[in-house]
Amino acid sequence: MSDWTYDLWCIPTADPGDVSGLRSRLAHVPEYEVLAIMGKTEGNGCVNDFSRTLAATAYGALFADTDKRPLLIMSGGTAGVLSPHVTAFVRRPRRSDDRPGPALACGAARTPDIPKAELGRMGQVEAVGRAVLDAMADAGIEQPRDVHFVQIKCPLLTDADVVAARQAGVALATDDTYLSMAYSRAASALGVAVALGEIDAAALTDDDICENWALSSSVASISSGAELLDCEILLMGVSTQVAGPLTVAHEVMENPIDAAAVVRMLESVGAGFPMTDTGRKRIRQIFAKADPAGTVRGRRTTMLNDSDIHSTRHARAAVGGVIAGITGEPMIYVSGGAEHQGPSGGGPIAVVAERSA
Amino acid sequence: MSDWTYDLWCIPTADPGDVSGLRSRLAHVPEYEVLAIMGKTEGNGCVNDFSRTLAATAYGALFADTDKRPLLIMSGGTAGVLSPHVTAFVRRPRRSDDRPGPALACGAARTPDIPKAELGRMGQVEAVGRAVLDAMADAGIEQPRDVHFVQIKCPLLTDADVVAARQAGVALATDDTYLSMAYSRAASALGVAVALGEIDAAALTDDDICENWALSSSVASISSGAELLDCEILLMGVSTQVAGPLTVAHEVMENPIDAAAVVRMLESVGAGFPMTDTGRKRIRQIFAKADPAGTVRGRRTTMLNDSDIHSTRHARAAVGGVIAGITGEPMIYVSGGAEHQGPSGGGPIAVVAERSA
Amino acid sequence: MSDWTYDLWCIPTADPGDVSGLRSRLAHVPEYEVLAIMGKTEGNGCVNDFSRTLAATAYGALFADTDKRPLLIMSGGTAGVLSPHVTAFVRRPRRSDDRPGPALACGAARTPDIPKAELGRMGQVEAVGRAVLDAMADAGIEQPRDVHFVQIKCPLLTDADVVAARQAGVALATDDTYLSMAYSRAASALGVAVALGEIDAAALTDDDICENWALSSSVASISSGAELLDCEILLMGVSTQVAGPLTVAHEVMENPIDAAAVVRMLESVGAGFPMTDTGRKRIRQIFAKADPAGTVRGRRTTMLNDSDIHSTRHARAAVGGVIAGITGEPMIYVSGGAEHQGPSGGGPIAVVAERSA
Amino acid sequence: MSDWTYDLWCIPTADPGDVSGLRSRLAHVPEYEVLAIMGKTEGNGCVNDFSRTLAATAYGALFADTDKRPLLIMSGGTAGVLSPHVTAFVRRPRRSDDRPGPALACGAARTPDIPKAELGRMGQVEAVGRAVLDAMADAGIEQPRDVHFVQIKCPLLTDADVVAARQAGVALATDDTYLSMAYSRAASALGVAVALGEIDAAALTDDDICENWALSSSVASISSGAELLDCEILLMGVSTQVAGPLTVAHEVMENPIDAAAVVRMLESVGAGFPMTDTGRKRIRQIFAKADPAGTVRGRRTTMLNDSDIHSTRHARAAVGGVIAGITGEPMIYVSGGAEHQGPSGGGPIAVVAERSA
Repeated sequence: MSDWTYDLWCIPTADPGDVSGLRSRLAHVPEYEVLAIMGKTEGNGCVNDFSRTLAATAYGALFADTDKRPLLIMSGGTAGVLSPHVTAFVRRPRRSDDRPGPALACGAARTPDIPKAELGRMGQVEAVGRAVLDAMADAGIEQPRDVHFVQIKCPLLTDADVVAARQAGVALATDDTYLSMAYSRAASALGVAVALGEIDAAALTDDDICENWALSSSVASISSGAELLDCEILLMGVSTQVAGPLTVAHEVMENPIDAAAVVRMLESVGAGFPMTDTGRKRIRQIFAKADPAGTVRGRRTTMLNDSDIHSTRHARAAVGGVIAGITGEPMIYVSGGAEHQGPSGGGPIAVVAERSA
Repeated sequence: MSDWTYDLWCIPTADPGDVSGLRSRLAHVPEYEVLAIMGKTEGNGCVNDFSRTLAATAYGALFADTDKRPLLIMSGGTAGVLSPHVTAFVRRPRRSDDRPGPALACGAARTPDIPKAELGRMGQVEAVGRAVLDAMADAGIEQPRDVHFVQIKCPLLTDADVVAARQAGVALATDDTYLSMAYSRAASALGVAVALGEIDAAALTDDDICENWALSSSVASISSGAELLDCEILLMGVSTQVAGPLTVAHEVMENPIDAAAVVRMLESVGAGFPMTDTGRKRIRQIFAKADPAGTVRGRRTTMLNDSDIHSTRHARAAVGGVIAGITGEPMIYVSGGAEHQGPSGGGPIAVVAERSA
Repeated sequence: MSDWTYDLWCIPTADPGDVSGLRSRLAHVPEYEVLAIMGKTEGNGCVNDFSRTLAATAYGALFADTDKRPLLIMSGGTAGVLSPHVTAFVRRPRRSDDRPGPALACGAARTPDIPKAELGRMGQVEAVGRAVLDAMADAGIEQPRDVHFVQIKCPLLTDADVVAARQAGVALATDDTYLSMAYSRAASALGVAVALGEIDAAALTDDDICENWALSSSVASISSGAELLDCEILLMGVSTQVAGPLTVAHEVMENPIDAAAVVRMLESVGAGFPMTDTGRKRIRQIFAKADPAGTVRGRRTTMLNDSDIHSTRHARAAVGGVIAGITGEPMIYVSGGAEHQGPSGGGPIAVVAERSA
Repeated sequence: MSDWTYDLWCIPTADPGDVSGLRSRLAHVPEYEVLAIMGKTEGNGCVNDFSRTLAATAYGALFADTDKRPLLIMSGGTAGVLSPHVTAFVRRPRRSDDRPGPALACGAARTPDIPKAELGRMGQVEAVGRAVLDAMADAGIEQPRDVHFVQIKCPLLTDADVVAARQAGVALATDDTYLSMAYSRAASALGVAVALGEIDAAALTDDDICENWALSSSVASISSGAELLDCEILLMGVSTQVAGPLTVAHEVMENPIDAAAVVRMLESVGAGFPMTDTGRKRIRQIFAKADPAGTVRGRRTTMLNDSDIHSTRHARAAVGGVIAGITGEPMIYVSGGAEHQGPSGGGPIAVVAERSA
């Protein structure tokens, strides 16, 4: 049996640097330990989004004196009705009156540093694959089918990396630093798919990465950043070894307006549409990937050729509207950049909710 | 009994100047006459959106040789999943086998030119109010409750108007030409509300316009433009005097994610959620106003303080996602600028659909 | 001796469809024939800029009844102080009192339709090269050194082209339609360079196009568009065979703030810095290409990683400021997309001015 | 005689939180004390620019352990060629071999907290006026004509302030928090003008603030922020009591492309146009305000009706191009929001340079 019981706290923020809500909550329940913080910050969610760094700086400072700093995943972009917030993944020692499992279990793991020549390639796929298995073990989850969301933060190539590789005569997956973010996300997503048996590792090659979009994971959610050299994995699933009040489920949205997938997911945790206030209160948080699409259910959209608004901002705004329309809650996690994370134009979606009676 | 039967054609466009779909349709059914064209064009939907003018130019040219040019209402802005298209409001002579009413009826009317000193003031409210009654009569609709959508195109103040007024010593509602668009929309919306008995005309004063947001019409949808001096009204409702296959219904979205209002509206014409393909095919078109909101169901949004994306683009993207998520159809009409058109942060929504059996 | 004398008219526009200024001018001097119109329209100058199409539609209609329609080159993007306008390239029959040459001469020519498999490749380079020589002959210019600006409009690959090529088993220069615009501009610019002896045609291969940035033309200014299948060339230079009041000169800006190049160019036509009102009146128009640059004179800029404003908008705003600062005139032609048109980060600049005494 | 000698260090930054350059410089010359830091950070320079906060956080942390924290003025927006950087205003004890004055002198002062009811009104004008005199005294400057740049950071009204005032029955200058930033900047600028005798304090009333644009200061540069309740003043001028290698001069740009003003200013410190490398090295930094203008030297611009790019971003890009074109240096301070700071459409500009021989 696991020694831990897990919870999720979804806390509104007044600005990217606002840590007051979480600080206040922690002061009231000191028995909780924060494993990870996933934030939606209010920048553009693209290259020059400094709201992410500001949030990471502020939350880093909040935990500066703790032994174990939580994993910080700041995702920019609150287009449309999306509301800035942080979700804290927390745990406390198990109590005798905790409801027996299967319940929500969270696990964490890290890969070794990814060699630059392996970034965006099979080496990264395999390293992530192994770390996903570690995170499953950490969470006390045995079956891949019990894994419902795998959030990964992965490194990228810098200008210095490109220069060094050139001098060393090493060919990288790409010499374009911005593109390296996509390659790193792609390899990480395929690593999840390999670890969970969603795709056949033996048939996979470097050429599939960022190319063969038929391959994807239904539970991977990846972001890349300049502040780390390894990959950090946060995994959610259900475990019979864990006691607690929460559960998690997931679905795959086939396109940005696949409300049916959202409803199926909600029904699988005992909620549905139209939602009642009781149903709403049971939901802790929803996590979704949004992917731009030039065509949605046969209709042309203008996301991909709007030179004023980045395509990912269009996609987040639309997907946020679809989900918030169903749940009545705009304070949800919707993130862009979905290479090999669900089908092209769609993406994985997960919900953490109170277990039904 | 009316001599006419009405229909709506929703036609995708490849670009703002693309008239090929409508031209081709008209060539096949020459008995139809086009009353109005409402388009969603793919510009930013704000001040410098030239896709509207381009579309109006192209559709104007298509009807250049006809006696009666249709009313052209081009609304810019296809953020998120919204798909560029035109909706043609058409009618043909009644046939003996047309299904007897009550059925969809459309009416048109115009005000006299609005004197500049009356623009955005009670004079415009009253002129629009009278013209709405004319449009009801034109449609063969007697009761205000049978009116479900009133689309109006209204004038604005130009720099030349402001200069002329100053020289004549006349005080205008505003000297800001951009703001005059809001005032003109506002006075037009209140004119609809007065005509349909939604608010008390006697208690209304100039000071309420763009100020007292408690006053609104639940069926008004207004856009302003530089190309006309009067107000043009297109009205939709149901009339017992009209035979035909279609009906129309409306609701009011209380906020940008008020999916319940959308579902109620769909249920009132015999569809609902989740929609079946059969239900989808019965819907001809949905029309909605989107209003930016700094707070949605108690959560902070960033629409109103995003200096990179105009608030109306956020609002259209979100509302488009909410509706398209429910109907599965992104080729819908969602327009911004909703002064006195539904509650602040929300807006009217209407559906034209095939009548249920 | 040439039968023609050339002039340039620079005319402000109130909006992209405003043809009133040119129409009025033509009515007063019916002896003039319009060879070409180069406009700066006020859209974003990127993919979804419909102000270009609107302007082309309006100016096309203005000349709908003429035998020979002028070449229409509409360039979007008036960032910063740049002022929307059109420049008409006109000619009239030579008069006995016209000042003898060398004077401004303009020539036009077209390539045959560019086969899709040759677009962005040596076939296009060579076709443009030949047409540039035709345009020189048309202008009565014999020496490459007397050519000072070559404006070209070239085709692109459409989705249909890509599909057709795939079915025919033909490999195109690129399957990305947006990228095909860059390839077509690049091949056209190199075609100019070949024709004028700026680079060695024999050493040039397909691999140099959009790759070897050391190769460039100092007088090419290229834009691509979907509305043509061949390349249209408008060439300006000085010819001893032409009489008239104007001349033309050019320079190459090495970077976006290379004011020294602008001053050298102005001095070569007898103006300089600081400019007097007399000097200003002698300038008919300035034409420049602007190229985004991540580093300007050793300093980091943020043009290339701003996800809210396209890099070409930053570049046009800055270059427009540099030039207008020197000349005091913001109604100039500054255009983006400068592959092989001057050095990377810089671009050609030309001035048409009244000849000095 | 003053005990201090002043210097300015202009240091490039790799990102908004990059303090490495200044930290390294301070480690080498520990005798210097930092009075103020003015930074250009790379956000949009508008409402949701978090690069300013990130920079202020990072520089605040750098000086967390010092007794006297420098004044931090972070201005967002590096459109066009503008290059992100910080300028540190530093001083060290006077040495016997310092070149005798008149030389650059810097002074600082603060007002008391501005009562909310006085913000944007005469109370703030007068408080700033008194503090400017204090800053002059601090700098050892006696004559207003020796003051060349007054940078002020001033407070704004928050939502809480508006609510509190409403409850207390107090009428504020404005209830719009965004507009309150303009009012606070305006009152501060007029405070400078009053202190330096540029306008007649006795004739000034609340109604002139943000209304009577004929009134302005030729040396004020103001920014407002949420992080303070008083006004902080940093003043630059020349003083006979101060020894040192630098001087300062200023001019007023009448419009965004008033290069003649820039050249006059440079000539007044012994540089000019075209600049030599020697002249360039003598310049420490240039400070300018940029003001959007719908018309520049009689030509229409599109700054004020571009709904995709904020007008201040257009203005900064253009003014940055004008200045950098003249000096060859894009790492300059150009800031927007210029109410009563120079004429409408123009603004003050100052240069700090090495004294000529």
